[in-house]
Amino acid sequence: MPERLIYLDHAATTALDPRVLEAMLPYLTSDYGNASSIYTLGRRAMQAIDRAREEIAAILNCRPTEIVFTGCGSESDNLAIKGVALAARNKGQHIITSSIEHHAVLHTCHYLERFGFNVTYLPVDEHGLVDPEAVERAITAETVLVSIMYANNEIGTIEPVEEIGRICRQRKVPFHIDAVQAGGALPLDVKALNADLLSLSAHKFYGPKGVGILYVRQGVRLLPQQQGGSQERGRRAGTENVAGIVGAATALRLAYEELEQVQPRLRTMRDRLIEGILSRVPRSRLTGHPTRRLANNASFCFEGVEGESILLNLDLLNIAASTGSACTSGSVEPSHVLVALGLPPEWARGSLRLTLGKDNSEEDVDTVLSVLPGIVEKLRSLAT
Amino acid sequence: MPERLIYLDHAATTALDPRVLEAMLPYLTSDYGNASSIYTLGRRAMQAIDRAREEIAAILNCRPTEIVFTGCGSESDNLAIKGVALAARNKGQHIITSSIEHHAVLHTCHYLERFGFNVTYLPVDEHGLVDPEAVERAITAETVLVSIMYANNEIGTIEPVEEIGRICRQRKVPFHIDAVQAGGALPLDVKALNADLLSLSAHKFYGPKGVGILYVRQGVRLLPQQQGGSQERGRRAGTENVAGIVGAATALRLAYEELEQVQPRLRTMRDRLIEGILSRVPRSRLTGHPTRRLANNASFCFEGVEGESILLNLDLLNIAASTGSACTSGSVEPSHVLVALGLPPEWARGSLRLTLGKDNSEEDVDTVLSVLPGIVEKLRSLAT
Repeated sequence: MPERLIYLDHAATTALDPRVLEAMLPYLTSDYGNASSIYTLGRRAMQAIDRAREEIAAILNCRPTEIVFTGCGSESDNLAIKGVALAARNKGQHIITSSIEHHAVLHTCHYLERFGFNVTYLPVDEHGLVDPEAVERAITAETVLVSIMYANNEIGTIEPVEEIGRICRQRKVPFHIDAVQAGGALPLDVKALNADLLSLSAHKFYGPKGVGILYVRQGVRLLPQQQGGSQERGRRAGTENVAGIVGAATALRLAYEELEQVQPRLRTMRDRLIEGILSRVPRSRLTGHPTRRLANNASFCFEGVEGESILLNLDLLNIAASTGSACTSGSVEPSHVLVALGLPPEWARGSLRLTLGKDNSEEDVDTVLSVLPGIVEKLRSLAT
Repeated sequence: MPERLIYLDHAATTALDPRVLEAMLPYLTSDYGNASSIYTLGRRAMQAIDRAREEIAAILNCRPTEIVFTGCGSESDNLAIKGVALAARNKGQHIITSSIEHHAVLHTCHYLERFGFNVTYLPVDEHGLVDPEAVERAITAETVLVSIMYANNEIGTIEPVEEIGRICRQRKVPFHIDAVQAGGALPLDVKALNADLLSLSAHKFYGPKGVGILYVRQGVRLLPQQQGGSQERGRRAGTENVAGIVGAATALRLAYEELEQVQPRLRTMRDRLIEGILSRVPRSRLTGHPTRRLANNASFCFEGVEGESILLNLDLLNIAASTGSACTSGSVEPSHVLVALGLPPEWARGSLRLTLGKDNSEEDVDTVLSVLPGIVEKLRSLAT
């Protein structure tokens, strides 16, 4: 059994980069001021937040004032969707999204349905792609928001968001991109993406847990969803998490500075995982798009095996992996994403998601390739 | 000028206790798992959260399952008020609160007014006290929530929450206590307080920024306000901020372990500040209740001076203080709290809040008493 943990669940969360922690530490020790306070200690906190906002705006190609800090990626998604929908509710009550969005989007749409909204959940093809023409056809005079994810968190498929954004802009419908899984991995230029709103979560790119980012294009009408003080220009009340915000910005900056070194390495390891597993494990399938997928995502279905059993066997070997979204762990139902791909339940229940990170090595890939076929074989033999 | 910062704005925020940071550090380094993941690293994160929940429940005299972790005190207030009000909206649409609540409560009530709710904002007496009988008289068959703060953040007045809670329980109306300013200072036994919901914010008691706590009594109907994954038993979606949660629990535990040492010291320093300032500064008044007040809060009004000018002069001497709530800094209007006390504007504009903390010393008090009278005198002479 490998001494060292082989962590292959970077889509669930990532380790805080030590350089990020270092950037945060002053704000966890000496620089503890409330950023709304007008004395020196408070102003220093606000300056740190301003710098963080500028760093993030530079990566998103937007204005610093268009960045809102939140408490997590889910809050960013909630704020984007409820904020735009409720601000426009007298204009129309129709939202368009896809059937494979993260629950932070889907359940937010369900919430709005309780308050009279109608939501179109677009289907996807067998690889998880949303059809931009289907978005266009779904738009009506009542449509107040389109929300489509940049890359799927379970299967890694990258959606045609630029194209969908172009359609939304032509039709004058605000477009929200849930980029929580794409942050730190794919270009985030909001102008190139034609995004009106874009959600990020720091802990997905080696930043701290408990910090989300929401880009809101100037001019987009947003009804704030957390009332209180006038922080974040009135768009999100609550004392700023200074250390977390500084950490989020540092992590995002490092991710994009190192993108060209990290992503090709991930892609190589991913392709070895995919080819190795598909060739060594009988009755296995890749899930998600064969090429249009996140560089770190290798996800599979194995017929006639329980995904959770695979995980527990991997865990015994000190290998951390996932069946899909960490947020729905413990659920016995097959993932809504895999169901939307049209996979039969006996395949969908046997899902495995391996998501690589910058600390993984080729040796980690070798280890997985050496142990996984045996685990699947053993589980299948136990089941019969 | 004192070399060392004299920090007298503990109501705005507190420094992270080094022991709290130490407790958090494992979860900012090696133990980075997502608490929803089923492998060892994830389970370790969940165990840390479970322990934190138990520690907090022990202090609140409630069940661990009645504790919900949020992203800040404002989110706790928002979730409590919107969650209860929107869950009960078919039963009634009336809320009772006071005119001196924090904006996290008042602006949440304003938000609900947009959606058809009626809100009674009860007046307070000259010391900032809410009259429990006025609460009772305001309750109608439509009332779905009463929300009254435990202690006021600007003037430190401690409200008769037990008595108000008793009335609410008799009348079967859920009672929310905004205890953000009282956390770490006053008893939090939710049964003794007759609370159905109670909000806390970790950074007010030497814990980290970006973590709130909400007690929700089992059986209280709450419509979750942040949709997504099934974290926090479905009451608050979003990947758990493990380090922050551990920090919040550690900070709360330390605060109550050390309450008997810290609070009397604060009270002594507070009383020296109050007596010293009232006797040395002409045309000065204490704001808030003379005795029923937080042990660390000394707040004043000075006729004919701008509070902000006092702050800037104190800042030049490396003394951090506030005019009132940090959350409304930059606002030129007199505080809604001071207005509710019936103070004339020429007094209300000259407010100063000194809030002590465990690292303050008698020497800090001496310094303030030696410099403040001169600052007020100078500002008054400049104004004439």
